[in-house]
Amino acid sequence: MTPKVSRFLRDHAPATPCLVLDVDRVEENYRRLMAALPLARIYYAVKANPAAPVLERLVGLGSSFDAASWEEIEACLAAGSRPEGISFGNTVKKESAIRAAYAAGVRMFAFDSEAELRKLARSAPGARVYCRILVGNVGAEWPLSKKFGCELEMARELMILAGELGLDPFGLSFHVGSQQTRTDAYEAAIAKVAMLFTDLRDAGVKVRMVNLGGGYPVRYRSEVPEIDDFGAAIMGAMTEHFGNALPEIVIEPGRFMVGDAGVVSAEVVLVSRKAKDDPVRWVYLDIGRFGGLAETEGEAIKYAFRTPHDGEVDGPVTIAGPTCDSTDTLYEKANYRLPLSLDCGDRVELLATGAYVTTYASQAFNGFRPLAEHYV
Amino acid sequence: MTPKVSRFLRDHAPATPCLVLDVDRVEENYRRLMAALPLARIYYAVKANPAAPVLERLVGLGSSFDAASWEEIEACLAAGSRPEGISFGNTVKKESAIRAAYAAGVRMFAFDSEAELRKLARSAPGARVYCRILVGNVGAEWPLSKKFGCELEMARELMILAGELGLDPFGLSFHVGSQQTRTDAYEAAIAKVAMLFTDLRDAGVKVRMVNLGGGYPVRYRSEVPEIDDFGAAIMGAMTEHFGNALPEIVIEPGRFMVGDAGVVSAEVVLVSRKAKDDPVRWVYLDIGRFGGLAETEGEAIKYAFRTPHDGEVDGPVTIAGPTCDSTDTLYEKANYRLPLSLDCGDRVELLATGAYVTTYASQAFNGFRPLAEHYV
Repeated sequence: MTPKVSRFLRDHAPATPCLVLDVDRVEENYRRLMAALPLARIYYAVKANPAAPVLERLVGLGSSFDAASWEEIEACLAAGSRPEGISFGNTVKKESAIRAAYAAGVRMFAFDSEAELRKLARSAPGARVYCRILVGNVGAEWPLSKKFGCELEMARELMILAGELGLDPFGLSFHVGSQQTRTDAYEAAIAKVAMLFTDLRDAGVKVRMVNLGGGYPVRYRSEVPEIDDFGAAIMGAMTEHFGNALPEIVIEPGRFMVGDAGVVSAEVVLVSRKAKDDPVRWVYLDIGRFGGLAETEGEAIKYAFRTPHDGEVDGPVTIAGPTCDSTDTLYEKANYRLPLSLDCGDRVELLATGAYVTTYASQAFNGFRPLAEHYV
Repeated sequence: MTPKVSRFLRDHAPATPCLVLDVDRVEENYRRLMAALPLARIYYAVKANPAAPVLERLVGLGSSFDAASWEEIEACLAAGSRPEGISFGNTVKKESAIRAAYAAGVRMFAFDSEAELRKLARSAPGARVYCRILVGNVGAEWPLSKKFGCELEMARELMILAGELGLDPFGLSFHVGSQQTRTDAYEAAIAKVAMLFTDLRDAGVKVRMVNLGGGYPVRYRSEVPEIDDFGAAIMGAMTEHFGNALPEIVIEPGRFMVGDAGVVSAEVVLVSRKAKDDPVRWVYLDIGRFGGLAETEGEAIKYAFRTPHDGEVDGPVTIAGPTCDSTDTLYEKANYRLPLSLDCGDRVELLATGAYVTTYASQAFNGFRPLAEHYV
């Protein structure tokens, strides 16, 4: 929690649940990432947190943007981004969205299938396109491997087809999965993409960009490697495979940029046991999986908690959200412990929750309104 | 799909994704349920679909309401419900919500813990309270067992305590899990609750209501027992265990009341394969798990699809939503098949999606707006 967030919580005690996010920390993260990967161009993954204060700060820093939808493109443009600084990175797009983006001046689009490529040829003629390939996601706490990307052989054919369709076969991309905790995941993926890159060059395709995606992790309950470690591993692999002929490098950080800038402030609604002698207490918060904490599904992302009683004697807990749905349980197996003195009405903070929280919030499940947001 | 929904879709071709719901069908379902369980008082589980046209129709029919939050209570009151017809059924409530409900005239509250009971004693003095007990959820496609309810021995102590605290220890409740496909789940739960009921009577507690919860299923991809089968099983078990001294019977149907009244109309955004010879196609829709179809988590609820090409040759598919998130995959293992001629831009209908869809929708994940709603 940054001092600014801490001060805001202390001075304002805002109604819970809410996110408080320090935009200065976003800027620091942007600079740290630039320092770790000076040759890469940063396309902020807007979906991580599309709030205007975040986008505006990043526009001011010269960031580019990776948008998942026409609505996200609109948000970037509204924040002052030039359309040339926006990549339409979802490989699954309605053709109406492609047309709208193209009309607005967006000229970079992702794809991973022939049908998508033909949409792009029709509705974004001449645009730069890049093909997403399937790579391993081992080490990612929020893996992405199965849904996006295609096999190498298919990517090769599609990149050749892109040129034939009048598009600019600009590059290749991959994604090693979100909250990726292993630097070698990038190394393996770079080796794979480099093979195809060379192959395409040999086939006369003027491919010239590699998009390394995002995945750079945030510290939640456990330590993760430093961003400099990822930078070193990535540049080592790029140099090994591309030598002096480095392509343009694009990265799409989302979680890394905003995750540790934000804190969710919540209230304990109930602490109870299912039987008198049950050693495990149930702690119910006023935010749960449908209030924004969607990434606790399968207990994948394990947030760290702060309570007013930290340091006192603790005991095992199951942590759940406020709705009448059993799937709205955050942590049951991950061995969380909280102070025995924790009680109804206590405020707790969920640390490093600046990414992938606000937009996930259900519009009204069980009648609860989405969490409030404060940018400081 | 009811004729009215069908006609609306044909005549208006509303922008997708959207829910179209036939409010007359809600009324039919209410009447079917009344016929199947004539001795039960119906408290509609508002969380299933809190839209004003649904609530207003049910108010007109004399329904009572099971609310999960103060916001849902407000929605019932706005729809014309008397406060005495509302039960605050969430066992996890902020004390401020209890106060608001009590001030508005609500006098029936659920609990399953001592802490909650003490909140009720403070903020809803003299109110009718009922204790939720833990029961098995075998047979439920959307189980609820773990998070709510307490063990019998604890329930017994808490019901006695309720009287001592000046509350009215009105009844006992259980929930056999949502989309419960086995009638014997109710029979087993009724046997369990009856034991405690008798025990409490013997202890001088004037308990006089049994709340059987909801769970009554809707036909999705597979057949389910008829509501009359549930009615017969429930009344058989009630008579077996309570004889002529039947308590007041409360039921809390949600899914059953609105599920088959609604249809989600969606668009195919992309059909693709990950490799040329892959037998499985990926079908991406403009609605997914974060657009409202939250109950497809773990492929729990298996919706039936209609396409413009039904009857043509089909093949295996993985069905996914439109967001850049791999968890936004609806069905990968449930052996769905769709026509080979299905293509981008085709409209598809997801049948019986009137329950537990609209409110789950994320407010803006990936920039996508929540689905539109049409009540006809």
